[in-house]
Amino acid sequence: MTLTIHPLLGIPEVSEGDDLPRLLLSSLDSAGLALVDGDVVVITHKIISKAEGAVMPLAGDDEDAAYRRIVLDESVEVLRRRGDLVIARTRHGFICANAGVDRSNAAAGVAVLLPRDPDRSAHGIRRALEVASGSSIAVIVSDTFGRPWRRGLVDVAIGLSGVDALLDLKGTTDASGRELAVTEIAVVDEIAAAADLVMGKADAVPAALIRGLDVAGGEGRATDLVRPPHEDFFR
Amino acid sequence: MTLTIHPLLGIPEVSEGDDLPRLLLSSLDSAGLALVDGDVVVITHKIISKAEGAVMPLAGDDEDAAYRRIVLDESVEVLRRRGDLVIARTRHGFICANAGVDRSNAAAGVAVLLPRDPDRSAHGIRRALEVASGSSIAVIVSDTFGRPWRRGLVDVAIGLSGVDALLDLKGTTDASGRELAVTEIAVVDEIAAAADLVMGKADAVPAALIRGLDVAGGEGRATDLVRPPHEDFFR
Repeated sequence: MTLTIHPLLGIPEVSEGDDLPRLLLSSLDSAGLALVDGDVVVITHKIISKAEGAVMPLAGDDEDAAYRRIVLDESVEVLRRRGDLVIARTRHGFICANAGVDRSNAAAGVAVLLPRDPDRSAHGIRRALEVASGSSIAVIVSDTFGRPWRRGLVDVAIGLSGVDALLDLKGTTDASGRELAVTEIAVVDEIAAAADLVMGKADAVPAALIRGLDVAGGEGRATDLVRPPHEDFFR
Repeated sequence: MTLTIHPLLGIPEVSEGDDLPRLLLSSLDSAGLALVDGDVVVITHKIISKAEGAVMPLAGDDEDAAYRRIVLDESVEVLRRRGDLVIARTRHGFICANAGVDRSNAAAGVAVLLPRDPDRSAHGIRRALEVASGSSIAVIVSDTFGRPWRRGLVDVAIGLSGVDALLDLKGTTDASGRELAVTEIAVVDEIAAAADLVMGKADAVPAALIRGLDVAGGEGRATDLVRPPHEDFFR
């Protein structure tokens, strides 16, 4: 099984109300790509938030203060705060910097929030792409998260449709017949990370197509990735 | 830029002293693949540890107790302990479950440790592959880590040669001209995660070839990924 990962190029700056499936299909078409069964389309949440109007003006004279207020509004719980950086839990359950509120890649004077329900966003885009293409696919919505003990950021999945979040290997055995201790792989996070390799933060490539995976057809939700409090050693 | 990720198949069970570059080249050859400039070869650490003899017998009557002793021997600091699970810092600086000591994919009665110096392991394999192929490549050694707030495991880089660990976007601007707040991408962790998509834990595919990335040529070390204590909010 060989994977290919294609950047989806030529997607213009997105505004509220834009038809993302149409923009994605147009990009695929320009690259000579037609969706086939099992394809996975990964989309950075920023263009979904913009299309859905999940943006807030940085109102008033002090944009930094306005930004900090929006971050706290989007936070259900603040785990740590140092200077301007807040590590918070969002209403979705994700723990990330600044509750996922972002000023980069946003128009001046505007903050981009996370989509209200990223699984639902993924589902809507998936259905539109499936109707247009006649193929069964999966859609993953990604964001860029830090990690407590490792420097640098990686893309992870915050919304999904048509794929399981976790690949459960329980009961499978390794090459020497021993049952695997590692039982759950966060395959959608690995897919989001892989897609980021062709996106690049500065290159305005907000989506990618991954072909060759054997994962489509699941019915997971991004909240499957949220570790429940009783399993969480680091709060 | 389209990426392709090829699983490296047909690599047999590895024992101490085995010539990994030869096994990798033989696998590539069987797939009709020759290394070209810019290729990245990702190798799961387990076969490197076995080839280097970084394994320990689970001595005595109680293998579980022997395993716990080895985990503590490999731990520089224990951050959390619950039941049989220990979250520890290794001498390399990595924070992970059971100090990276693994019983799965190991022969019965044996624990597999992390390589003593995974960057050095990566470097040696890279040099041998470069001499054999005449191409400039990168090598990444991967392991499977959990995350504090997200369920499921993902592969990350614990050793590297010929590539920078972090992609620094500082000073670059987004499509609307705003300087990016996100400045460091852990690109080698994203590469390790991408490679795992074709490996699969139960399938005995211990390596992958990634072609089409524009990252080879750096001189990073895996310890570049270790967050220094003063930046670490979660100890």
